[in-house]
Amino acid sequence: MGIGHRPGAVAASELGREMYQFVAELYPICRSITGDGVRRTLELVGRTVPLETFEVPSGTQVFDWTVPKEWNIGDAWVKDARGERVVDFRESNLHVVSYSTPVSKTVTLAELSEHLFTLPEHPHWVPYRTSYYREAWGFCLSEERRSRLADEDYEVCIDASLEDGHLTYAECLLPGRSEKEFLISCHVCHPSLANDNLSGVAVTSFLARHLSRLDLRYSYRFIFIPGTIGSITWLARNEAAAARIVHGLVVAGVGDGGPFTYKRSRQGSAEIDRGMSHVLKQSQTSHQVVDFSPYGYDERQFCSPGFDLPVGRFSRSPHGEYPEYHTSADDLDLVRPDHLAESFLQLLAIVDLVEHNRIYVNTNPKCEPQLGRRGLYKVTGGQADQEVMQLALLWVLNQSDGSHSLLDIAERSGLAFDAVRRAAAALLEHGLLEETN
Amino acid sequence: MGIGHRPGAVAASELGREMYQFVAELYPICRSITGDGVRRTLELVGRTVPLETFEVPSGTQVFDWTVPKEWNIGDAWVKDARGERVVDFRESNLHVVSYSTPVSKTVTLAELSEHLFTLPEHPHWVPYRTSYYREAWGFCLSEERRSRLADEDYEVCIDASLEDGHLTYAECLLPGRSEKEFLISCHVCHPSLANDNLSGVAVTSFLARHLSRLDLRYSYRFIFIPGTIGSITWLARNEAAAARIVHGLVVAGVGDGGPFTYKRSRQGSAEIDRGMSHVLKQSQTSHQVVDFSPYGYDERQFCSPGFDLPVGRFSRSPHGEYPEYHTSADDLDLVRPDHLAESFLQLLAIVDLVEHNRIYVNTNPKCEPQLGRRGLYKVTGGQADQEVMQLALLWVLNQSDGSHSLLDIAERSGLAFDAVRRAAAALLEHGLLEETN
Amino acid sequence: MGIGHRPGAVAASELGREMYQFVAELYPICRSITGDGVRRTLELVGRTVPLETFEVPSGTQVFDWTVPKEWNIGDAWVKDARGERVVDFRESNLHVVSYSTPVSKTVTLAELSEHLFTLPEHPHWVPYRTSYYREAWGFCLSEERRSRLADEDYEVCIDASLEDGHLTYAECLLPGRSEKEFLISCHVCHPSLANDNLSGVAVTSFLARHLSRLDLRYSYRFIFIPGTIGSITWLARNEAAAARIVHGLVVAGVGDGGPFTYKRSRQGSAEIDRGMSHVLKQSQTSHQVVDFSPYGYDERQFCSPGFDLPVGRFSRSPHGEYPEYHTSADDLDLVRPDHLAESFLQLLAIVDLVEHNRIYVNTNPKCEPQLGRRGLYKVTGGQADQEVMQLALLWVLNQSDGSHSLLDIAERSGLAFDAVRRAAAALLEHGLLEETN
Repeated sequence: MGIGHRPGAVAASELGREMYQFVAELYPICRSITGDGVRRTLELVGRTVPLETFEVPSGTQVFDWTVPKEWNIGDAWVKDARGERVVDFRESNLHVVSYSTPVSKTVTLAELSEHLFTLPEHPHWVPYRTSYYREAWGFCLSEERRSRLADEDYEVCIDASLEDGHLTYAECLLPGRSEKEFLISCHVCHPSLANDNLSGVAVTSFLARHLSRLDLRYSYRFIFIPGTIGSITWLARNEAAAARIVHGLVVAGVGDGGPFTYKRSRQGSAEIDRGMSHVLKQSQTSHQVVDFSPYGYDERQFCSPGFDLPVGRFSRSPHGEYPEYHTSADDLDLVRPDHLAESFLQLLAIVDLVEHNRIYVNTNPKCEPQLGRRGLYKVTGGQADQEVMQLALLWVLNQSDGSHSLLDIAERSGLAFDAVRRAAAALLEHGLLEETN
Repeated sequence: MGIGHRPGAVAASELGREMYQFVAELYPICRSITGDGVRRTLELVGRTVPLETFEVPSGTQVFDWTVPKEWNIGDAWVKDARGERVVDFRESNLHVVSYSTPVSKTVTLAELSEHLFTLPEHPHWVPYRTSYYREAWGFCLSEERRSRLADEDYEVCIDASLEDGHLTYAECLLPGRSEKEFLISCHVCHPSLANDNLSGVAVTSFLARHLSRLDLRYSYRFIFIPGTIGSITWLARNEAAAARIVHGLVVAGVGDGGPFTYKRSRQGSAEIDRGMSHVLKQSQTSHQVVDFSPYGYDERQFCSPGFDLPVGRFSRSPHGEYPEYHTSADDLDLVRPDHLAESFLQLLAIVDLVEHNRIYVNTNPKCEPQLGRRGLYKVTGGQADQEVMQLALLWVLNQSDGSHSLLDIAERSGLAFDAVRRAAAALLEHGLLEETN
Repeated sequence: MGIGHRPGAVAASELGREMYQFVAELYPICRSITGDGVRRTLELVGRTVPLETFEVPSGTQVFDWTVPKEWNIGDAWVKDARGERVVDFRESNLHVVSYSTPVSKTVTLAELSEHLFTLPEHPHWVPYRTSYYREAWGFCLSEERRSRLADEDYEVCIDASLEDGHLTYAECLLPGRSEKEFLISCHVCHPSLANDNLSGVAVTSFLARHLSRLDLRYSYRFIFIPGTIGSITWLARNEAAAARIVHGLVVAGVGDGGPFTYKRSRQGSAEIDRGMSHVLKQSQTSHQVVDFSPYGYDERQFCSPGFDLPVGRFSRSPHGEYPEYHTSADDLDLVRPDHLAESFLQLLAIVDLVEHNRIYVNTNPKCEPQLGRRGLYKVTGGQADQEVMQLALLWVLNQSDGSHSLLDIAERSGLAFDAVRRAAAALLEHGLLEETN
């Protein structure tokens, strides 16, 4: 029952710092949907948890898609007439449009301008742009910088390669007592963006590390994949594993200070959906639970009708709904250690819930058992807690007819899952409950 | 797919004027549940659409009812002691209680008063009264006129006949690709009342004319019947046709300026009920959707438990809820061309919806198909529309698992049916959807 | 159909006085879960209704419980150094903790204080305390009295016996045309507490008396039992009877002036739950309907999962939610004759509802029958009532397809059950409805 041993406040604080440090370490790497940036990232994740890495060749057919060429980049710049770098990849990998084709030539400002991307509404920020499935080249820069470019010739250089290679992803599988799996997925394809999604990578890695030390009911599979093409590739190669998934979460954008956002799976009231709602409600933190829509991160693929998996998405501020999203302002200041730690604890709570959510049967279903002579009115400490426990004992006894899970009981009674679970444990110990098959 | 070719603003305006002209042409005719007024009305409807007229003999048993005697009227008046017509049928056919028995005699004011009906709360209006199933005679007049009647003898004359004859009704059937029928019913039994229900007769006639030019999925049956006894007679004679009805609407009171009112069928969530709700919601006009009740127009009979047809009622201000209802104030000023046109367009929208509402199956259900390489992110025009279409494509793909219709998808996504339908058409064209049987 | 003959306003007022008188007569008796107080109480109930009394020996196993020893008390007091009774059982039986073991000794104030219970927040009230399942002795007194006790020795005496004997309860069974039973249960174990639950005892007794004069559809079983151990004992001895229960109510706390409170059964939407909600809503009195919880009176046992009976609880102010609860302030001033009478009438209304709630079938399901020629538009008196009756007739005809009960129809139409019932009776009389099996 190791799940119950949650990190205390001090441990959580320390954990937040560790996760933040990991985000900072991953931040400078230039990642894309393929290439050495992903490999380097997975290497660092692999220092935290046992990780198996997979390389899928370019050109591999994965359902309706094809694994693309591999992209790598050495350097890139725009130089003005004086030979000074006015846009410089070495300053930030966001300056190059991801998957840009190699280029090396001299262009007029007019010609250059067709390849420049800025954010006029945030003149000091650099946007994040990609061109995965259409061959093109481009640079991203601040509007402020662009406005100062003189009308002269510029030398542009993108020292990149776009060639047959591999798509790289990794898995960490923690076997549990059951073959049924809890899938936790995060994307590793974004370059220097801290919240989207180094926060997800860090929290997922540390959750895997934490769970690896516990005795688990479910098997937990953590996957670190590039967005969209990565989940499609994983699903295409793992249909058998997908069929074992009974709970799942896509973890993304969990380091900012926004309210928690849980997006339901396509199924809408799967155990993960109901459980995550319960966890957030009980945590009494600011949060929202939103319905599934086929727009978002990799839940789009996990919830496609041919899979329809019970996979929701766990975030803080939803993608696209905070101004720093997909800009250079999604940096190490946007993410905070305590935000990461809070996200970690919510994930631990949902793991705790599904680990302990069972259907029991009252062994004494006719009238209440006499709790007093068993000392069951005093399971735990304080007065308020005793009243809650008394109610929880009565609710569990009343509802445990073989058709209601502990989560059902928590929802109907309005009590916290944790109280219901402790009541069930006490009743089980006294032989007043038994497990169903 | 001709349904898609909806009348533009100019055409709708012209159509409104045509329908209003038709209401004005029908207005002077003295209709009742039987008789030559109905015949003359159907003759005029028949100039607009191909119509088959039926004559059912008095005395015919129709379920629990009997087709009544036929009533016709030539003239009617009340003359004062000076021989002047103080109440005159020639001024307005509302002055005579419909189905009055013939009378010709001299009476005192006291005796006359027992046969006079006024509206004291609207002293200048003449009420509309009937006495179909109890033989009696009477006159309706304004309270203002009645209050000026001197205490003297009056000569009363109702030159009417109430004899064995026929009940007359008509049908316009537009065969579609399916034998399944969409029934549209309106009542033709009210005399000079413009909104109730010449507005319904006009809109129904012009909808029939419009649809008659199109290639239709469903067969459309338009029936022009006297209220209550007409629908009972039609159902008694057409049980086989009734069994083919999959959608239906009673159209009444659609020319005034009130908000649209849709009254659900007894079934409550039939496709017509959900579709009409969706159409009104999407139209962003003032409207209300109300639950079925067994009180109203002919939906009472269509929704009797032995039939329980998916027939709702489409109106603007509900009967009995506007002051002019069943009075001389329900005249050609209450009804406006643009109100008629708006009603017409709502009916066309629900026809469009049921014509195109199908269940499709995603041919590529595992993960999303790669829409980009098919150019499917640019199905249509403007930027806002493109975002809607992108969402619509994703929703249709995600939900088309053989159990969700396009209306289901529109409801779940919050998108307009029209966007969902266009997305489905585009996906079908690219082989990404296929029809179910 | 005698249920329809409800007491008029005068009769209800008289009934309220009678019930109040009965409460006053029962008030001084010292009751507990066993003993002569219960016997004396049942003897008085037995003067009002035919009652069968049962004696169950101490030590009898009833499910998980054991019938306890019988407790009786003669006198009890605390005397100060001057020999004056500072706490005196003869003043109020609340002064002794119920089930106190015998004691007779001299103690210091410090020692005494460990056995004294007061209500500091209500310094003039005496609390009600019990110690059924843990042998102990104690006195209850006002905080005001306690604060004046000098620091001296006190003589304490509880002249009680706690010995093998019996648990006593009683039943009044009124056989109806059906063996299916309506259970009405009240607890008789509280000493001088007027609302909790002499009000329940009085209203239950008089309801039994009232129904005993009528021709009944259901059999009615009224049980007068000590709380918790009484319902457990009754269920253990009457499993066959329990299986016949189709409706049930626990009646407690029905004499105060609070709003009516109906607590749903565990089933949640049993006929008693829906019916009671309808009755309270229609009564237009202040009321609340609350969900089941396994905390309360004997509904805890009736609704345990091994029985799961459709038994709700009918109260006014819920137990524990009014300050006088379980104190000496729950006295003859808290309870009023008119409150008792109002409670009685609500119970009579729910009995009336379940007695008449049936599913009928429209014998003329295709279109409406012609009500006019049957004179069915004038079933009853006034104009407003006629409009309601006309609607009720149409609703009953429309919904009576063999799947909707009269309560279903009342709920869907928003009409009072009584109007629906009268409409059904009229239609039945005219052969337009027939009973289902």
